[in-house]
Amino acid sequence: MVFVMDEFELYKHLKIGSVRRIVQGSLMKEGCTRVKGEVVADNLIEADLRGIPSHGVARLQRYLEHIRQGVIDPKSKPRVVYQTALSAVVDGMNGIGQYTAKVATDLTIKMAKKTGAGIVVVRNSNHYGIAGYYAERIAKSGMIGFSATNTAPMVVPTFSRETILGTNPIAVAFPADLGYPYMVDMATSVIPRGKLEVHARNKKAIPAGWCVDAQGHTTTDPGEVLENLKGKKGGGILPLGGEGEEFGGHKGYGLAMIVELLTAGLSLGEPSWETYRGGHGGICHLFAGIRVDLFGDPERITERFTSLLMKVKTGNKACGAKEIYLHNEKEYRARAVNIKMGVPVDRATYNMLVDISRRYGLGVRL
Amino acid sequence: MVFVMDEFELYKHLKIGSVRRIVQGSLMKEGCTRVKGEVVADNLIEADLRGIPSHGVARLQRYLEHIRQGVIDPKSKPRVVYQTALSAVVDGMNGIGQYTAKVATDLTIKMAKKTGAGIVVVRNSNHYGIAGYYAERIAKSGMIGFSATNTAPMVVPTFSRETILGTNPIAVAFPADLGYPYMVDMATSVIPRGKLEVHARNKKAIPAGWCVDAQGHTTTDPGEVLENLKGKKGGGILPLGGEGEEFGGHKGYGLAMIVELLTAGLSLGEPSWETYRGGHGGICHLFAGIRVDLFGDPERITERFTSLLMKVKTGNKACGAKEIYLHNEKEYRARAVNIKMGVPVDRATYNMLVDISRRYGLGVRL
Repeated sequence: MVFVMDEFELYKHLKIGSVRRIVQGSLMKEGCTRVKGEVVADNLIEADLRGIPSHGVARLQRYLEHIRQGVIDPKSKPRVVYQTALSAVVDGMNGIGQYTAKVATDLTIKMAKKTGAGIVVVRNSNHYGIAGYYAERIAKSGMIGFSATNTAPMVVPTFSRETILGTNPIAVAFPADLGYPYMVDMATSVIPRGKLEVHARNKKAIPAGWCVDAQGHTTTDPGEVLENLKGKKGGGILPLGGEGEEFGGHKGYGLAMIVELLTAGLSLGEPSWETYRGGHGGICHLFAGIRVDLFGDPERITERFTSLLMKVKTGNKACGAKEIYLHNEKEYRARAVNIKMGVPVDRATYNMLVDISRRYGLGVRL
Repeated sequence: MVFVMDEFELYKHLKIGSVRRIVQGSLMKEGCTRVKGEVVADNLIEADLRGIPSHGVARLQRYLEHIRQGVIDPKSKPRVVYQTALSAVVDGMNGIGQYTAKVATDLTIKMAKKTGAGIVVVRNSNHYGIAGYYAERIAKSGMIGFSATNTAPMVVPTFSRETILGTNPIAVAFPADLGYPYMVDMATSVIPRGKLEVHARNKKAIPAGWCVDAQGHTTTDPGEVLENLKGKKGGGILPLGGEGEEFGGHKGYGLAMIVELLTAGLSLGEPSWETYRGGHGGICHLFAGIRVDLFGDPERITERFTSLLMKVKTGNKACGAKEIYLHNEKEYRARAVNIKMGVPVDRATYNMLVDISRRYGLGVRL
């Protein structure tokens, strides 16, 4: 479950169509096709609507810079370089991550529809937005949907002080009748980088158990951690479970390693610690779909998923707790509001969008 | 990674053959076939050799009781109740968990050899020992091996106070040239139940972040938690990531839910909270294998796995740390010692084995 609307200062809700025109328009001016622009816009706007601004339109500026720096090739097409009836390896050809991921997701669904399961690994891609976007699309086809990706390095393995692993999110989505797809979409690190940035901006100490310094020891100074990450001095964010083994930090470290092996390992692409070198991103992804009817009547199984989930949802709350949430529930509740109100942005993102509209001569009023 | 030899008081190393004769012999006297006895003995002894005594021969007494109580049917055979080219649902028919799991693992490997991937879900089973035992066997066939199981309920979802989820371990094993299979085998809870028991016995407080009381609030009293678990009063162990969302407890809760849905959901079996009711175990498992050559030359991919792992292994250590461990490394290091010294047991387990040998007239000297 992603932290929804957490530590986010709303400035305005913007018309979805206007935001879409800015994202798509600026990308097209940089050489993307209409379809590529559309896919990126949809992905980023979905993140904002769900209350995940760290993966929303705030990213647009960085994508445009990456295109201009040659990290992202707006014109390349992903290539299938290896394929069986239920698996494929895709070379992203340094193209825009969301489009490559869309092609890989479509291929996953197509193979699973035919053979029961599909697994696609991708190398030489770029940032692809929220992992759950793809897992959810797969689940909408009556499958259990999986997606995972490695990322720029910022996580330190248990007992290490090297900034070597990515936040390496895993998303798993199930078809269920909850009014939204049940989905766990989680970084395998204890926190996302965005939390550090907010604490640094507000000059607030971070709790012990989130990060280590360049020596590999607990620190509560978010500014120091960010400096070390920028300067590649060592240290960074801890894996889920925190420092050492007392609270299971070795488990989060294990989950991050599983993601490295399933993405960079299987695709023979770059691991997190070799991404963004030599002028290209080198991000690797995994997509998988397993048809629910491989195990019997899909309606009965979907009903079973629903009843298991509702049993947990309606359990006795901890004294003082407001609610027990299912994963993806908060996101869809945010989405239901934002789809009417518009894309929620903070002041910096608003200014960025106004500036991009102006610079690219898009003439979109916000 | 399982906590190896942690909080374990060694009394003696016992001859592997002698322990095997007691496990197999007593189970056969209770009506198991020779093969079933062998499989259980191998599984329990492997756990002890690897330094995981919580899943070792100490369990034998409970298995024998379960047979006598009718929870485990020693004579039943698992049945395949649904099958496609790459998937199956197995009804464990309340048989002994390790044997049912062996049959399901064999089927997984057979299907994956033929079609590239195999996924088997199991219902109506019993405790199956360490999850990694099965994932590792699948990985030895040149596949990525997966296994997961639900368990008796003892874990509390984020913001709940109900003891509803199991410790729900996940094991993922990869072929690699490390001298041992790389494997992450982890309960999705912050700690296993055994840790609580040791703290209670030693009258030591537990760290805040391991458990909650019957109201769903942090407690440091291990005795209270164990009492609540026994009396089904609520509370219990926290998911990986601890209490609330600050350290990602909702992520461990998500991983546990994924296991419930993939085991009890897909097999239409019992979720953790309905196990051990009405006189049967009702435990559900998942097994899966994905052939590495679905993605290209298996040798190159295995080499890639190895080099990625060794890069992390040989990274800069945190100041003061002895070593960066890979998952399964400690276990195999323990195994290398114990395979020569014998099965390590504590005093209580030694006494139990002596007693079982006597009661069943097995005449095994320890």
